[in-house]
Amino acid sequence: MNMNKNKNKNKMFRVAVLGATGAVGREILAILDERRFPASEVIALASARSEGTEVSFGKRRLAVQVARPEAFEGIDIVLASAGSAVARKLLPAAVERGAICVDNSSAFRMDADVPLVVPEVNPEAVASHGGIIANPNCSTIQLVVAIKALHDAARILRIVVSTYQSVSGAGQKGIEELSKQSIALFNQKPYDVSAHEARIAFNCVPHIGPFGEDGYTQEELKLLYETRKIMADESIEVCPTAVRVPVFAGHGESINLQFERPLSADEARELLAAAPGVTVIDDPARKKYPMQMDCAEKDDVFVGRIRIDRSVPHGLALWVVSDNLRKGAATNAVQIAELVVAMERHRAEA
Amino acid sequence: MNMNKNKNKNKMFRVAVLGATGAVGREILAILDERRFPASEVIALASARSEGTEVSFGKRRLAVQVARPEAFEGIDIVLASAGSAVARKLLPAAVERGAICVDNSSAFRMDADVPLVVPEVNPEAVASHGGIIANPNCSTIQLVVAIKALHDAARILRIVVSTYQSVSGAGQKGIEELSKQSIALFNQKPYDVSAHEARIAFNCVPHIGPFGEDGYTQEELKLLYETRKIMADESIEVCPTAVRVPVFAGHGESINLQFERPLSADEARELLAAAPGVTVIDDPARKKYPMQMDCAEKDDVFVGRIRIDRSVPHGLALWVVSDNLRKGAATNAVQIAELVVAMERHRAEA
Repeated sequence: MNMNKNKNKNKMFRVAVLGATGAVGREILAILDERRFPASEVIALASARSEGTEVSFGKRRLAVQVARPEAFEGIDIVLASAGSAVARKLLPAAVERGAICVDNSSAFRMDADVPLVVPEVNPEAVASHGGIIANPNCSTIQLVVAIKALHDAARILRIVVSTYQSVSGAGQKGIEELSKQSIALFNQKPYDVSAHEARIAFNCVPHIGPFGEDGYTQEELKLLYETRKIMADESIEVCPTAVRVPVFAGHGESINLQFERPLSADEARELLAAAPGVTVIDDPARKKYPMQMDCAEKDDVFVGRIRIDRSVPHGLALWVVSDNLRKGAATNAVQIAELVVAMERHRAEA
Repeated sequence: MNMNKNKNKNKMFRVAVLGATGAVGREILAILDERRFPASEVIALASARSEGTEVSFGKRRLAVQVARPEAFEGIDIVLASAGSAVARKLLPAAVERGAICVDNSSAFRMDADVPLVVPEVNPEAVASHGGIIANPNCSTIQLVVAIKALHDAARILRIVVSTYQSVSGAGQKGIEELSKQSIALFNQKPYDVSAHEARIAFNCVPHIGPFGEDGYTQEELKLLYETRKIMADESIEVCPTAVRVPVFAGHGESINLQFERPLSADEARELLAAAPGVTVIDDPARKKYPMQMDCAEKDDVFVGRIRIDRSVPHGLALWVVSDNLRKGAATNAVQIAELVVAMERHRAEA
C-alpha cells in the first residue's frame, strides 16, 4: 500500500511535444529539461516537412517524428504548439488515446468545456478538463499575471492596454524577418515581407492577426475574451490595441486600470511584490523599470512604472514586460502540465 | 497709399534659425525653403562648436554663425530649436532687439503669457504673444491635431495615450545611436549608451526625459499640461505613457478617448477626413493604417484604426502617426512663423 503510494507519488509521464521544431516547441523542450519535468520519455513531433531533423532536449538530441494520430499511442501528456488547424485535427486523436493535451493554439481557448489556465491565476480550472487544457495567448498571460493580485484587492472595472509585441510572437520566421530586413535596410537592399503584415524593421505595425469585430484584430480580442475567461469575471471591460515592434524577444504592455475601490501605488507595489510569478522592477529614478532586453529568457512577468492614474477615479498605470516565448507560451504550458502531473498523481494515490 | 499697401502685403522677413545644425534645425531650413517662406535673408546660428561648418538651405549652403545676442540684430523672426537653457539665455535678447521668436524648446511653453500654438488647433493664440511663441512637444502636437475636430464635435473628457516614439526625438545623436547599436548587436560587438536612457536597438525604453511628479516623466506630463493649454480646456483628463521604440523617424500613439456625447466611428472618420492637417488612413482589411515607415518626411498627422471603444460609454480608440521632426517640430514652427507673417503684414497694412 505504501509502496503503491510511493509509486504513484513518483509516477513518471510519457510526453509528446507537438510542433517541436517551432520557436515555442523548442522552448517547451528546453523548459521541460530545466524544470526536470517527470518524463519517462519525451518525443518530438512535427509536420512531415521536419521529418529526419533533430531538436535539442537538454544534452540529448531527439529525432523529430511525424505528427499523426498513431504517434500519440501510449502518450500521457501532449504539449502542443502547432497552430489551430493542426490542433483541431490531431488533439482529439490524442485525447481518444488517453492523453491530456496542453494546447498553445487558439483552437479551443474559448470552448466552454475547455479550461483556459494561467497557473498563478486560475490553477483550479485545470481540474475540469475533458482532455484538453488551453494555454492563453502570450499578451493575455502577462496581463492577467500582472493584474490578478490587484483585482483581488480592489476589483478591476476597466483595462486599457496597448502592446509592444516582439517578433518572436510570429515564430522563427518572424525573428528571421526582422533580422534580414534590418540588415537589408542598412545595406540599402530590397527585402521581403511575409512573416509580419508589413515591414517590421525600424517600424511599428498596428496589425497582429486578422481583423475581426468592429475594427479590432483577433490578437486584440484575445486580450478581452481570454482575460474575462481566466479571471472568471465577465464584467471586466478591456480596450486593447496590439502593435508589433522591432524587438526580437519579449512583449511590453502599457496598462491603465480602473478599480472599484481605491488602491495606492505603494499598496499595488506591495501586492505585486508578493504575487506569484511577478517581479517588481520599479525604481525609475535609478532607471529601474522593465525592458524587453532585460526580461528575455526569464520566466517571470516584470512590472514597473507603477503610478496613480489621476485621469479617472481609482486609476493605476503599469508597464509590464515578459518573455512571450517563455511565460507567454512555453513556461505557462509546462506549468499547466505540472498541475496535470500533481492532479494525476493525487488521483492515482486516492 | 496703394503702393504702400502692396509693399506691406509683400513684406519680406529677416529670419534666424537658432540650433541650425541639429536634427530639427536642419528640418526647419528645409521646410522654410520648401514652403517658400517670405525671407529676405536667412541666417544659421548654432553654438561655437559648429562655427565654420555649413548647413543646407535649398540649393544654397549657409555658413553657421555663433549664436550670441548680437547675432539677432536686425532679425525679424527667430526659429529656435536649441534646447531650453540656450532658449532662456538667448531668446529674451532676440526679443529685446525686436525679433519675434518661435521656440521649439520647453523653456517657455507653460508660461502664462507665452502662447503655445498648433496652427490647426489654436491659431488665434498667436496674437497675444509678447515676443515669444512656443512650439509644443512633438507627441502633443500630433495628439491635439488628431483630436481637435472630435473634441469640437463631442467634447473629450479623458485621454489615455501610449506613445511609440522614434529616436529622432532625441536628435541626431539619438538617430546615430540606434544605427550604431543595431550594427554592433548584429556583429556581437560592444556598444555605447548615451543618447537614450538605455539600449534602444531591438528594445523599448519606457523613459523619455527625467522623472517628474508621481512617477511620470516630463515627456508624459507634457502630454497632459500642453494638451490642456492648447485646447484651452483645463478639464480634459490625460493619462500618458511615453515609450521610445527602435524606429528612426515618426512617432506612433495609441489613443483612447472618452467623450461627453456619443460619436460613431464613421462620424469620427468623416470629421477627421475634413480636419486640417489630418490624413485618414483607415481601411484595415486592406492593410491600410498609419505606420512610421510611410509617414516619415510628410507633414500631416495620420489617423487610423478608428474604432469604438466599448469598454466605456462614448469611447473611441485611434492609432496616430506623424513625423516628429516635421509636424512634431519643424513644420509646426514654420506654420507658426507663417501666422506671424500674416499678422505682421496685416498690422503693417492697417
